Order: sequence, then structure tokens, then C-alpha cells
Amino acid sequence: MKLYDCATAPSPQRVRIFLAEKGVDIPLVAVNLREGEQLGEAFRKINPDCTVPVLELDDGTMISEIFAICLYLESQYPEPALMGRNSVERAMVAMWNTKIEQNGIAALAEILRNRAKGMQDRALTGPINLAQIPQLVARGRTRAEAFFDRLDDQLRDGAYVTGDQFSMADITAYVMVEFGEWSKIAIKDSQTNLQRWYDTVSKRPGTMA
Amino acid sequence: MKLYDCATAPSPQRVRIFLAEKGVDIPLVAVNLREGEQLGEAFRKINPDCTVPVLELDDGTMISEIFAICLYLESQYPEPALMGRNSVERAMVAMWNTKIEQNGIAALAEILRNRAKGMQDRALTGPINLAQIPQLVARGRTRAEAFFDRLDDQLRDGAYVTGDQFSMADITAYVMVEFGEWSKIAIKDSQTNLQRWYDTVSKRPGTMA
Repeated sequence: MKLYDCATAPSPQRVRIFLAEKGVDIPLVAVNLREGEQLGEAFRKINPDCTVPVLELDDGTMISEIFAICLYLESQYPEPALMGRNSVERAMVAMWNTKIEQNGIAALAEILRNRAKGMQDRALTGPINLAQIPQLVARGRTRAEAFFDRLDDQLRDGAYVTGDQFSMADITAYVMVEFGEWSKIAIKDSQTNLQRWYDTVSKRPGTMA
Repeated sequence: MKLYDCATAPSPQRVRIFLAEKGVDIPLVAVNLREGEQLGEAFRKINPDCTVPVLELDDGTMISEIFAICLYLESQYPEPALMGRNSVERAMVAMWNTKIEQNGIAALAEILRNRAKGMQDRALTGPINLAQIPQLVARGRTRAEAFFDRLDDQLRDGAYVTGDQFSMADITAYVMVEFGEWSKIAIKDSQTNLQRWYDTVSKRPGTMA
């Protein structure tokens, strides 16, 4: 088993933290996103959708998309459970992971990818070049700021995103907050629950790995 | 258990087909998206992110986000398996479900929501009003057409999206193709694998339900 990775990108970071929380060490293969290696012929055979991370199994099966990779890793290394310990918890982790990804991380990507000089024609990941749309920068900011508030509300009662148990949803949210720094979206003074949670989660061995 | 639903919307349709394929019948609660019921105070208590479907459990737990709902339903009604029969299959179903959702359905939504007169300020689902961005119409079309090709390639060798077994990924892809009709994105004559697959899948009792 090996993981196609990029040390500086938020998506593969989520899988690396997941592995570190499990105490699992697997070989990493660096893909140079800055030089567009993910768009080259060789990498398209690994993932035609030109994204990292990709988990390659020993029989050559390629698993892309973060949730799918983590689902497989959870089946192989069940302890500590990071995707819920029963049916309801598993649903809650999947639900929050989706919300954080689509309303948080995707909003932050909208800001970055539609503004960065190095990302012209790379407004979205994937094999097709898509021009930047400047209006998406402001829209991304509006969405991301609203979602930080949403997550702050969610963290009012529980220690972690889905309650009293650290999970994949926390990893996704942690990477979201770190990714926010790229676009100067930070936890606000008023978001005290989010700050308390972040202080706890950022001191875990997994997130510090 | 009951499902907050909308008969005309593609997202809850995915869960209804999933239930029909399992032979499970649960009460449906109609949410009037056309009149904005999802944005009202009452529905925000059910799902603050203002989307359907939402599955309400008997203890009041609310599960939103389609994959999370299906994960829970699969745990309660394991047969027939629609999310994979082993770890690798489960990862493949999750992987393809994500790709179809993010590269297919989201692209089609980009076309529709940034153009429809009835969706001004509703360029995305969710509690915040976001203005339409006309450039996203063309971008959505480019992305959706490319993804129909991608799926056609994937269906070259197998009867179904992930191979020889019908799964949730097929349900998501079927709803995507139907949703494409709203924006005049149809299967092309050249996409013979996609057409063959669609002819098979559209005759299932579940998709005809």
C-alpha cells in the first residue's frame, strides 16, 4: 500500500493525519502539484481526475477521493475508530465531513483558486483548465466566514465536531482552519468554541505529525 | 424514521431510489422548496444548512447529506448491499459517488442555478443568498460534458459504475443523467457505454419507483 501525496496540499494532509492518528506508517509518493505533475500522462493512469491523495493497494487498485480512502483505511486499521463506533456515529461523521468539505474547504478553495497568480486557468482541480472567475473570490469569503460561524455553533456543546469523540470530521475541520490561513480567513474572537476546539485539536500528535 | 423530501428535486430522489431498491417504505414529509420552506425557521431546526433530504430517526436524531443518510440506511437494511460487499467495493462506491456528485451533479447545478429565473440569489443551496454568476453557466456545461465522457469511459468494461454490481454509485449517476435534462445536457450518440448502462438502469423497479 502507498499514498500519492503532496506535502504542501490540504487534501492529502487529511489522509496523513488520519494515518498518524491510527499510528500507521505507509510509503508516500510525492506528486509535484506546483509543476503540474498531476496533469501529466503518467499520473493520469493513477487517477484520471488528476487529484491527490490516491491510495494504491498492493494489487494495484487505486482509491482516490479522501472519504473513500479513509473508509478503506478504517476497515484495515479499525482502532482507534475515526469514522464512528456505531451506525449513528458513522452517519454523523460522514455528514459533518461532507458539510466541512463542501461548505468550508470548497469555499476556501474558491477564494484561493480564483485569485492566485499561480493558479490561472486552474479554478478547479481536475483534468480541464478552467479560467478564474474573480466574483468567486468574494463569494468564497462570504461562504467560508458563514461556515466558521456554523462550526462555532456546532462546537458549543461538545468537545469535538460530532460530540465527545475525536473523528475524521475533526481532521477535516482542522485542515480547513489551517487552509483558511492561505486566504486570511481566521477564527474570529467571537468564535470562542471554535478557538477552544482548535487549541485542543492542534496539540494532538496526529495533527502535529 | 421519516424522510424530509421534495418530489421534484434530484437530491432526495437519490435516497428514495436507494430505499426502493432495498424494498423499504418509510414516511415522507414534503418540503416545498419552490416556496422556500427549507429557508424558514421551522426547517432550520431540522437542518440549519437548509437542504433536503434529511432522515429523522425515532429518537429525533437528524441525518442530513445524502451519503450519510445512505450509510445509515445500509446499516439498518443491509440487503441488497448498495454500498459494496467488502472493504474495496465500499471504497469504490464511495469514490465514484463522490466523483459523480462533485464533477457531474455539481456541474449541472452550476448551469441551472446560475441561469434559472426562479433561482436568482440562490446560486448555491444553503442558508445564505448568493447572486448568480453568469460565467458559471458555461463553466458548468464544460464540466458536465467532460464528466459524461469520463463516465462513458468508466462504463466501457463493466455493467455498472463500479463493476458487475449495481450500487449507490449507479443511483447517483442515474439521477445525474436525469438532472442533465433540465439543462439540456444529454447522453451523446458517441457515449455508447453510458447509453447502454442508462437503458439498463432506467428499467429497474427502483429507478421507476
